[in-house]
Amino acid sequence: MNPVAPKIRMGFVGGGEGAFIGQAHRQAAGLDGGFELVCGAFSRDPHNTRQTGAALGLTASRCYHDWQQMLDTEALLPLDQRMELLVIVTPNHLHAPIASQALKAGFHVFSEKPAALDLKELLALKQVLQGSRCLYGLAHTYLGYPMVWQARDMVRAGVIGAVRKVLVEYPQGWLSQDVAAQGNKQAEWRDDPSQSGLGGCIGDIGTHAFSLAEFVADQPIQQLCAALGTHVPGRQLDDDAAMLFKMAGGASGVLIASQVCTGEENPLKIRVYGDKGALEWRQEEPASLIHRAFDQPLRILRSGVGQPWLCEAAQRRMRLPAGHPEGYLEAMANLYGDFAQAIRSHAEGPDAPGVPGIETGLRGMAFIEAAILNHRGEAKWTAVQTGASLL
Amino acid sequence: MNPVAPKIRMGFVGGGEGAFIGQAHRQAAGLDGGFELVCGAFSRDPHNTRQTGAALGLTASRCYHDWQQMLDTEALLPLDQRMELLVIVTPNHLHAPIASQALKAGFHVFSEKPAALDLKELLALKQVLQGSRCLYGLAHTYLGYPMVWQARDMVRAGVIGAVRKVLVEYPQGWLSQDVAAQGNKQAEWRDDPSQSGLGGCIGDIGTHAFSLAEFVADQPIQQLCAALGTHVPGRQLDDDAAMLFKMAGGASGVLIASQVCTGEENPLKIRVYGDKGALEWRQEEPASLIHRAFDQPLRILRSGVGQPWLCEAAQRRMRLPAGHPEGYLEAMANLYGDFAQAIRSHAEGPDAPGVPGIETGLRGMAFIEAAILNHRGEAKWTAVQTGASLL
Amino acid sequence: MNPVAPKIRMGFVGGGEGAFIGQAHRQAAGLDGGFELVCGAFSRDPHNTRQTGAALGLTASRCYHDWQQMLDTEALLPLDQRMELLVIVTPNHLHAPIASQALKAGFHVFSEKPAALDLKELLALKQVLQGSRCLYGLAHTYLGYPMVWQARDMVRAGVIGAVRKVLVEYPQGWLSQDVAAQGNKQAEWRDDPSQSGLGGCIGDIGTHAFSLAEFVADQPIQQLCAALGTHVPGRQLDDDAAMLFKMAGGASGVLIASQVCTGEENPLKIRVYGDKGALEWRQEEPASLIHRAFDQPLRILRSGVGQPWLCEAAQRRMRLPAGHPEGYLEAMANLYGDFAQAIRSHAEGPDAPGVPGIETGLRGMAFIEAAILNHRGEAKWTAVQTGASLL
Amino acid sequence: MNPVAPKIRMGFVGGGEGAFIGQAHRQAAGLDGGFELVCGAFSRDPHNTRQTGAALGLTASRCYHDWQQMLDTEALLPLDQRMELLVIVTPNHLHAPIASQALKAGFHVFSEKPAALDLKELLALKQVLQGSRCLYGLAHTYLGYPMVWQARDMVRAGVIGAVRKVLVEYPQGWLSQDVAAQGNKQAEWRDDPSQSGLGGCIGDIGTHAFSLAEFVADQPIQQLCAALGTHVPGRQLDDDAAMLFKMAGGASGVLIASQVCTGEENPLKIRVYGDKGALEWRQEEPASLIHRAFDQPLRILRSGVGQPWLCEAAQRRMRLPAGHPEGYLEAMANLYGDFAQAIRSHAEGPDAPGVPGIETGLRGMAFIEAAILNHRGEAKWTAVQTGASLL
Repeated sequence: MNPVAPKIRMGFVGGGEGAFIGQAHRQAAGLDGGFELVCGAFSRDPHNTRQTGAALGLTASRCYHDWQQMLDTEALLPLDQRMELLVIVTPNHLHAPIASQALKAGFHVFSEKPAALDLKELLALKQVLQGSRCLYGLAHTYLGYPMVWQARDMVRAGVIGAVRKVLVEYPQGWLSQDVAAQGNKQAEWRDDPSQSGLGGCIGDIGTHAFSLAEFVADQPIQQLCAALGTHVPGRQLDDDAAMLFKMAGGASGVLIASQVCTGEENPLKIRVYGDKGALEWRQEEPASLIHRAFDQPLRILRSGVGQPWLCEAAQRRMRLPAGHPEGYLEAMANLYGDFAQAIRSHAEGPDAPGVPGIETGLRGMAFIEAAILNHRGEAKWTAVQTGASLL
Repeated sequence: MNPVAPKIRMGFVGGGEGAFIGQAHRQAAGLDGGFELVCGAFSRDPHNTRQTGAALGLTASRCYHDWQQMLDTEALLPLDQRMELLVIVTPNHLHAPIASQALKAGFHVFSEKPAALDLKELLALKQVLQGSRCLYGLAHTYLGYPMVWQARDMVRAGVIGAVRKVLVEYPQGWLSQDVAAQGNKQAEWRDDPSQSGLGGCIGDIGTHAFSLAEFVADQPIQQLCAALGTHVPGRQLDDDAAMLFKMAGGASGVLIASQVCTGEENPLKIRVYGDKGALEWRQEEPASLIHRAFDQPLRILRSGVGQPWLCEAAQRRMRLPAGHPEGYLEAMANLYGDFAQAIRSHAEGPDAPGVPGIETGLRGMAFIEAAILNHRGEAKWTAVQTGASLL
Repeated sequence: MNPVAPKIRMGFVGGGEGAFIGQAHRQAAGLDGGFELVCGAFSRDPHNTRQTGAALGLTASRCYHDWQQMLDTEALLPLDQRMELLVIVTPNHLHAPIASQALKAGFHVFSEKPAALDLKELLALKQVLQGSRCLYGLAHTYLGYPMVWQARDMVRAGVIGAVRKVLVEYPQGWLSQDVAAQGNKQAEWRDDPSQSGLGGCIGDIGTHAFSLAEFVADQPIQQLCAALGTHVPGRQLDDDAAMLFKMAGGASGVLIASQVCTGEENPLKIRVYGDKGALEWRQEEPASLIHRAFDQPLRILRSGVGQPWLCEAAQRRMRLPAGHPEGYLEAMANLYGDFAQAIRSHAEGPDAPGVPGIETGLRGMAFIEAAILNHRGEAKWTAVQTGASLL
Repeated sequence: MNPVAPKIRMGFVGGGEGAFIGQAHRQAAGLDGGFELVCGAFSRDPHNTRQTGAALGLTASRCYHDWQQMLDTEALLPLDQRMELLVIVTPNHLHAPIASQALKAGFHVFSEKPAALDLKELLALKQVLQGSRCLYGLAHTYLGYPMVWQARDMVRAGVIGAVRKVLVEYPQGWLSQDVAAQGNKQAEWRDDPSQSGLGGCIGDIGTHAFSLAEFVADQPIQQLCAALGTHVPGRQLDDDAAMLFKMAGGASGVLIASQVCTGEENPLKIRVYGDKGALEWRQEEPASLIHRAFDQPLRILRSGVGQPWLCEAAQRRMRLPAGHPEGYLEAMANLYGDFAQAIRSHAEGPDAPGVPGIETGLRGMAFIEAAILNHRGEAKWTAVQTGASLL
């Protein structure tokens, strides 16, 4: 990812001191030099906002009291000074309201997932987006990894034949105990349905597994059969999910997402089996893509510039020679890089090529609702339809 | 596993030249020196039987035309010469008829799995067994691995707390293509319901995953929700299965068993998550047991004699210092070793301590039938009951 | 690594289009937001310089014809606008001359390694540095990895007891064939002694292995016994090195550095064995630190914020929770972060805490010279002395 | 490895209760059914001998007081009853005297390594062997692994091109502390030069690394430069060795063998780098052979019957399909299988095809002596010559 000037002027809602994901966004945006932070409403606490802004080198006049003030004020600045892109890294319930206002005011939006709290809100946001000329991106960071693109490219090229089985899993362990009660803020708001939405684990990480499966297998999940669980006393939302599913192209599969897999870190993993071969990728070792064939020794394709057997989509998402690890921030930086390029090329919305957008958000929301519906009901299979809704 | 004389006199049904599993049984029985092969009816082809017997050093008079002849003739030999133990390594449909006859004739039986073709046949066999004074063992070989016992011991000791999640998977790839049509005998009879039973993959390897899950998590699976598949045109039985399940002790889980996971060898794997910690074991690297705890770096416990932190049940199943790999044959030899010890100690049936027996067979059969029932029906959940039956 | 404003104003010598390491430096500097690129002399080709500058958002007036012009012109700018830090990413032979001039002109310097072409040049540079009030840093990037600091901390804390053995290896494969003849620029200048210095592989990557060994084992290497090799016809410098060594604290060890280990990427690896335990770290999987003890199962300590068993020095070099990979650019960004902090705190040279500096450069040069001397001579052991010299 | 009757009648010297390696030999010999234990002098303690014999099912008359008595008595038995093969599993100093007497008495010999305590004794043994019509085998067990043969075959076939670098390492940790003082018998006699020979670690495991290197790289080591160490107070022999070496075919390399690498189990490992590709094999995961090529993704060849890309020499050393681990005992059983076949085919000595023999012993002894000579002397390089001697 090479920067091309001019830098995109960027503002933040959320991401004050102590907020992990906001800092990650700033680091990812900073990595390739394509962005310039110009303003922020980092926190509900004005002191935090001022301090964060100062540490980041912002002038006090562009550290705003709240996001409404920021949108209003920035919109009045000269075109060559005002913020172009708003990054939203607040708790979930604010994603859609802020995005909606920002788009109406003419700002591009890059939002943490989920795009909205429920399908209704999301469809409303989509309408706003379509009425604007702005771009909208969603931080499905794992879709920024080069070897994920390499896997999809090999599936599309028929290297593994017709896809039969998709096994995707995302076991985490950090919610195995009641960490919210111990003061973990991340755990706290995630378990509050008014801030987090209907899904707990299923929304937080299940959607990552879901979008990865659809992306790599290159076909939508049509039906699912789910069992959710909540294991820690007092917890309101699910912390554990497992499901069987059927895909549009004829493949079937299993999706596991859990936050009570004690001791696990972040090993999101996908395996795709076709009639000729198979692919395996694991986020904790993102440079390696395992390729199995029916009657050949297995091969490990490795990330790294200058390897001609890697597809173009993978190659342009790498920065370093093989053996120099790139990770999570580089994957997110790939999303930022493509978003910057789309803004610079004066693309009109709603999507930036290479960046998950509103449709990825809709699929994820349909997935959450189908999983919860199926879990609560008696039927074995439930359709994952964009139109379906719990509401 | 140390031998204690006298050697047990052993005969084989099946396992002629070209039969993989018969040779594995002889190697496993030979490893620790506790057995002496004295007779066999190795094949329906008398020439094969004679040649196999000769290569194994048997006198021609104890290479029998068929298993009935063998049982009849051996029963007439003096007590200190006649076969004591019959090993059954034929195709599935003969397991129960032969075992039944052998038990009636007073021979101990060690049988390849499954114990029978269906629940009805199995219950009849159980009755014969209970009416005999003989021992009965079933080659659930993976339950012979030392670190599987270590895992169960740690679960029982509460090291990982209350078990919440059990993820067990057994992906193989050898049936991804139509190998039966290419002359693979193993594939051929396995897809013939009259020889193999109602289940294909679900019976062949699903039962291994099932018994491993119940053994390590130390609680029975009560309910399941399954999706089976058959992927190769012309194939009659399932070659692929996935299911959600609920256990008696409150845990839930996922079981995956497939023979169309192209390129996979034999990576049976189990992960058990409790509220304090977790365990992970994989058959392809059987010496390592991964132990995760909520707030500690992970540890890898390794197989090998003389490590005081391993439980007694694991220690007595090891032969070599850490770093000297022991594998599949050693695991099977552990079953043979415990079976020999039970025979030598004049135990009366039906089970030999440490060896899977008729109850393991019953659980496996109940599992197969519940999975098929659930797959064919509309209900989301089906009980795994020994009493339940497709018939 | 958290940024603290104001940003450090940074200029580059080298790093034009097509130069890998220059871009890596800019990405690393950009990651945490502590720097602002204000000027550059990116290439001997003025067109390249202009184009690179434009893509990076520089005004044409601060894209300089050459580094002398840059130093002269920047020195005349107002204090609050002029470059504060010069980053040197040219071929090796220019490192010392440029650094020397920059320091004399009052600019801080962060230089690619080696610091100079030979010991004489390096000692002269050191004198200039000591006469200045500037800071000097050297891009020994692997010393920026958090788990390298964790390893050193555990050695210092006595966790593994008295260090006995240090095994360090750095096998690469990219020079297995004559890639210079195929137009690989990196390979080309690296094999020209007038640009690269006396050592080929020994200088390029041997010094990384050497500095890692001294850093983690926390004691200097005193004597070595080396064998160098050159395997590709026409190549002038060594492409392969192996040596035995003895350390000041009583440990002995082996160092392997080779660029003809066909197929290897960049698996720099160190193992340190003490009388109580051992540590193992590998750059290609930098988040894991393996800890073995004499009579305990092995543990794997993993990188990731918020794990209280990690030392403070490691913790402050991490950005993300465990399981979110950080890599090479993050390690380099850690050097930049510490350098920025030292500049901001008005530290006076020569070293920035946490950043390898002139002494690391001197040790590396002494190592190169000792290895070549030993290889060429008859003696078994050669001292690694800062004062020793081939010249 | 398939047995072919008749079974070879086998006797043991050493290997009484509590002796690890004797039991391993019996298990390995028992695995494929090619041997029958007929007699033994298992211990200097007659009680131990009787008890061991009884447990193994021997009649008391063939449990001998000592090995001389055994040789004498067995020699008088009828040809179709007497022992054919003597297995020697005593401490080192008895290997040559017993082998010599056995060969003179007309018995084949399979001996634990080393073949003798020093070169002089070994050359005398060689003369006896050449004067006999017997076969002699040496338990270099690691040369029985199928993927070691696969690696050698690929080297010979030119798959990796001309061999340039050989890195072989054998780090163990069990002698990191003074375990002899804690009653470890294995450690005790190994540190007594009168029982163990001149080399400690260098003889015990260095020779394994050495023979593996020569075998796989398919060329002898000609010169070496060594550093030995002894780290535990009171220990007499070396417990640690490292050396550089040069091979006859132009390759150079590094050999590391140590028993003070705290926490290491038995990870003997070899890497061979040619100008086209490279191979890597590790004993703790013996089923995998990693193949790297200059410009291709790496491949992992896996052990397992029926894979046509494996060489014949590897295929005949496997018993099970891929994914069913075979280990150390299976590797040793491969040596026994080839030895049995040679005996059955009435081969006349001194070597059995496929089994390391007296020449492997001579190379190992020359290696030990060269390493010690070099370590003690001033010269940088010492030749590894069968004729060279410390004596």
